[in-house]
Amino acid sequence: MKQVKAFGTHAPSEDLVELEITRRTVGELDVEIEIMYCGVCHSDLHTARNDWGGSEYPVVPGHEIVGKVISVGSKVSKVTVGDYAAVGCMVDSCRTCPSCEQDLEQYCQNGFTGTYNGKDKHLGGRTFGGYSQSVVVDEHFVLTLPENLDLAGAAPLLCAGITTWSPLRHWNVKEGSKVAVVGLGGLGHMAIKLAKGLGADVSLFSRSLRKEEDAKQLGVDHFVLSTDEEQMQAVKHQYDVIIDTVPYEHDLNPYLHTLSVNGTLVLVGYIGNMESMMHSGRIIGGRRAVAGSLIGGIAETQEMLDFCGTHNITSDIEVIQMQEINEAYERMLKSDVKYRFVIDMQSMKG
Amino acid sequence: MKQVKAFGTHAPSEDLVELEITRRTVGELDVEIEIMYCGVCHSDLHTARNDWGGSEYPVVPGHEIVGKVISVGSKVSKVTVGDYAAVGCMVDSCRTCPSCEQDLEQYCQNGFTGTYNGKDKHLGGRTFGGYSQSVVVDEHFVLTLPENLDLAGAAPLLCAGITTWSPLRHWNVKEGSKVAVVGLGGLGHMAIKLAKGLGADVSLFSRSLRKEEDAKQLGVDHFVLSTDEEQMQAVKHQYDVIIDTVPYEHDLNPYLHTLSVNGTLVLVGYIGNMESMMHSGRIIGGRRAVAGSLIGGIAETQEMLDFCGTHNITSDIEVIQMQEINEAYERMLKSDVKYRFVIDMQSMKG
Repeated sequence: MKQVKAFGTHAPSEDLVELEITRRTVGELDVEIEIMYCGVCHSDLHTARNDWGGSEYPVVPGHEIVGKVISVGSKVSKVTVGDYAAVGCMVDSCRTCPSCEQDLEQYCQNGFTGTYNGKDKHLGGRTFGGYSQSVVVDEHFVLTLPENLDLAGAAPLLCAGITTWSPLRHWNVKEGSKVAVVGLGGLGHMAIKLAKGLGADVSLFSRSLRKEEDAKQLGVDHFVLSTDEEQMQAVKHQYDVIIDTVPYEHDLNPYLHTLSVNGTLVLVGYIGNMESMMHSGRIIGGRRAVAGSLIGGIAETQEMLDFCGTHNITSDIEVIQMQEINEAYERMLKSDVKYRFVIDMQSMKG
Repeated sequence: MKQVKAFGTHAPSEDLVELEITRRTVGELDVEIEIMYCGVCHSDLHTARNDWGGSEYPVVPGHEIVGKVISVGSKVSKVTVGDYAAVGCMVDSCRTCPSCEQDLEQYCQNGFTGTYNGKDKHLGGRTFGGYSQSVVVDEHFVLTLPENLDLAGAAPLLCAGITTWSPLRHWNVKEGSKVAVVGLGGLGHMAIKLAKGLGADVSLFSRSLRKEEDAKQLGVDHFVLSTDEEQMQAVKHQYDVIIDTVPYEHDLNPYLHTLSVNGTLVLVGYIGNMESMMHSGRIIGGRRAVAGSLIGGIAETQEMLDFCGTHNITSDIEVIQMQEINEAYERMLKSDVKYRFVIDMQSMKG
């Protein structure tokens, strides 16, 4: 076992501060990674503040982890010391249920082990995430990184990237598909880049004209002002898939109207009750569906990373020091980031 | 044009009474059908009483029509005089939109013409349904009936049958599929029979133990008392498809839990706002979907009728006289029918 420096919080209402955590001894299937960059996800903030309940303290967030392999167990074959590697939202799962057997660890029927605040099977207590100097992870949950990708920009692929990639793939987005994205934040901007990479015709729904320029720069083909009745009418029956990244309760009915027959709106950003979000007439009259999707499996995450390597896709990021995390959370709450904060872990060495 | 006897209502709060309506002259593509039986659907009652808004009076309901062809236009090729034929929920659509071109007239982007209370393109005003002596319909919207089927029992196939058949087919139910049905009424009992016909393993969710015997008689493999926590836990992650026929607002969350990863719950019975019906966590955590489906296309309706011929599937019915319709509506509201009323149109001749 090893003591390493980390950043975390001791209570829902407290700032994140430097603290020390224990990493397990590297087992025969384990990979030890020195963390170089860690993306900052909304879930980090929600877990730190116990917004969803279930947080156990201290909470050390971070599940968009990129770094360098510094040691490996005797049976590890996926990476060797010196490789760049990545870890996403999961560090374990049961490996035996029907979901795990289909490479859908994210839907493990016995519950996957989250990279932070998960039940730590090795040390007891909860797992600690990537706001730390290093992490020890079973190789099954370690990803390899295409060499051409910017390391910092690749970090958000591990959550924002896979969360949008998985539904695009599952709902069969390909050359010529018509895709719309709702919300232009960390998830939304990745959805745009990945859907464009897959060859889709991509629209962005936004309630603010000020987003149009940014959207166009990200490669969006059509900007649709969702508050404009006429623009919304013009895209009726248009989309095969809508990726809805909005993280709060919102009216889905105007968007459902823009789905083609057999189209699907996929919720990836909002977890909660869906009061006043939908009218069943909008799905019945067009055989439409409202679905949900959660991150992605490990094999699928690797597929996404390799795809990003081929298409040179990374996240648009703002790099911060570890010590700036509390301010970054406040800015994130105001959507004041284009489009993802990534922590430079060099800053923990000081 | 021809005056024929019908049963309809002049106002939302009035009983149905005998009245006279006009049927158009048979055009070159038209089929004139003497109506022998007409099923009684919940939509009939809702339209008669203007529960959904948009009813124009008089309303003559009825869209589960079975009868005998008594004349045909010069260009009709589908049926000849003397054939048994059927008409369902639609008598026209635009025929040119992407939905119509895919045989999905039920999702016609310009709106299909309902068999009753639809905008009549020929005579102006609204269309009149099957509570009448005869009807004139374009042959495209006329179905043929397998000879072996009981005519009265076949009538409900035209709405209750196709409404449940279409989602079973679209979501690929086949030998070995696991299907659950929510609600045991006109739609529910057809969903069970058709899913069994397709070779699925079929469960019925019910809140009442009293339904168990009936369910078993209809061929259900498993009866699940949805108010029993233990029984609900035992079917977690079980179903590929759930056909939800409940016609009022209800909590979907317990059912969503019983869907397998990638499973879909299809609403076919309830049209309205979905307040307090679902929590997005239930669809996100399992890549599940809540979808809707509306009747079925004409080609698909014919496919269903032919399938019912092969498998000798009809609806369980109670035959009534036309003059008993108002009492039947009251009994339908109390779910006091197993499982569909069908009007014997001989009763209009008296």
